[in-house]
Amino acid sequence: MKIAISGLGKMGSQIAKKLHEDKHIVIAHNRSRSVIDDMSALGMTGAYTKEEVVKSFNGERVIIWMMVPADVVDQELQEWLKLIPKNSILIDGGNSDFRLTKKRAELVKDTGSVLIDVGTSGGVWGYKNGFSMMAGGDENTFKIIEPVLQTLEKPSGAYNHFGESGSGHYVKMVHNAIEYGMMESIAEGYRLLKEGPYKNIDLVKAGEVWQHRSVITSWLNELTKDALKENPDLKDIDGVVVESGETRFALETAKDFNIETPAIQSAFDVRLRSQKGEINFATKLLALMRNAFGGHKINQK
Amino acid sequence: MKIAISGLGKMGSQIAKKLHEDKHIVIAHNRSRSVIDDMSALGMTGAYTKEEVVKSFNGERVIIWMMVPADVVDQELQEWLKLIPKNSILIDGGNSDFRLTKKRAELVKDTGSVLIDVGTSGGVWGYKNGFSMMAGGDENTFKIIEPVLQTLEKPSGAYNHFGESGSGHYVKMVHNAIEYGMMESIAEGYRLLKEGPYKNIDLVKAGEVWQHRSVITSWLNELTKDALKENPDLKDIDGVVVESGETRFALETAKDFNIETPAIQSAFDVRLRSQKGEINFATKLLALMRNAFGGHKINQK
Repeated sequence: MKIAISGLGKMGSQIAKKLHEDKHIVIAHNRSRSVIDDMSALGMTGAYTKEEVVKSFNGERVIIWMMVPADVVDQELQEWLKLIPKNSILIDGGNSDFRLTKKRAELVKDTGSVLIDVGTSGGVWGYKNGFSMMAGGDENTFKIIEPVLQTLEKPSGAYNHFGESGSGHYVKMVHNAIEYGMMESIAEGYRLLKEGPYKNIDLVKAGEVWQHRSVITSWLNELTKDALKENPDLKDIDGVVVESGETRFALETAKDFNIETPAIQSAFDVRLRSQKGEINFATKLLALMRNAFGGHKINQK
Repeated sequence: MKIAISGLGKMGSQIAKKLHEDKHIVIAHNRSRSVIDDMSALGMTGAYTKEEVVKSFNGERVIIWMMVPADVVDQELQEWLKLIPKNSILIDGGNSDFRLTKKRAELVKDTGSVLIDVGTSGGVWGYKNGFSMMAGGDENTFKIIEPVLQTLEKPSGAYNHFGESGSGHYVKMVHNAIEYGMMESIAEGYRLLKEGPYKNIDLVKAGEVWQHRSVITSWLNELTKDALKENPDLKDIDGVVVESGETRFALETAKDFNIETPAIQSAFDVRLRSQKGEINFATKLLALMRNAFGGHKINQK
């Protein structure tokens, strides 16, 4: 189908490429020009302004996948709402706060269009392996955009629809909260290997044994031991780890609903403290993991 | 090779069967008789007393894999040391405290034999999928028993040797500590799905999407969503979760070496509190997971 991707960062550009290669007609848009040129060179329709994006649909239903940072979604949305005709579909594929998504969906509905939320995991590996996608919002509209999700899940990702507006972002938020706790647990464990009583334990060999039918076999452990193989002493990693929002939302929600989340909370706190200078082997490993699955900058200072 | 398995519980009986089926000559021993009869019926040599075990080696090197609860290892060891000839090999395949393993290895060494520690993960699935095994102790002795580990890792488990005595149990202890933190993180997350603002999120569908190329893809998540499919409301689960020792050792070690382990600590604390009556959807999920990977009793009251 014809779809615009607005926001061609790490995730957006890979989504655009994957859709283009599976015969969708992709209109590529971004604030800065150079990545649009790159996508045009691959055969997509480059659109340098939002007006051009809408015009490129030639009267067909406008479908725009927004893949922008959470803090610019409101501005983006306002700009699109000035330009798109009724019956358009906007997709927020980023890590928006589900509470805002609910409000934004009302706003979009008032203009006669629909906002669908699609929380998207899989990091920079999604292009190759398929994305893991969690959708929310009007179910009939979801069905219209399903061919796009069917492409993006190939070969071994997945997607599903979880209910009313915001529920996709909610399930993705919980995913990220679990991710924080799992990463922290793994990082603490490897630090125990590194700085405990046995000075010569080979961390990569431990990770490899664990990755073969142990209880903690996981993609995060696989990435960790692979990254440690490349850089066993975590050289040139400052160990400052940012928190990117969703886990903060999750902890707020946990409090609102009286749900105890001590492991997730502790993982969040470690990141905050790392930003105040409390860095160690474990926080360096967290930075390494984030880089390995998401292409996030290793050094945050 | 010829090897005795002493302790034919959930793990021990599967280790015995797997070795027997791969043409090792297995002497099956246990405190109670009935499971010895079961193993004899499968073609193994049943030995109803420790004396019979030693006699069954007919002068060949005595190799005994002990698969008994951590709190009876000392007694077992004393009994074996009275019976075995010099140059015997004792293997502690259980979840012993690595600090005791170091001392026990000295004791065994003084009698002219060797103690090897093999931390064994893979739960009740190891028979089918292969075990994940972490060994420590004298390296030449480790090489002698390697054919046994080569059988037990089939088809997709793994093993390695991590250094001096106790290091295998140490790596297994850290594995279990990570396991606690990962389980707790997953349990908190599913509870957020269940008890948060969206009342109709399908937890199994969420787990299935997460299991396809999300960042938290893991065996524990797979077991969790499969178990939720069977029992979505966690009926008839009391939610009391025991702690089985190794994570307590890990937290003590963390303190000894000034290593911060807040996620693992919080997971441990949740289990202690569950035993004092603080039970909820998350602690019930922990019980479900333990049952799924290790065959542990669901209800602990």
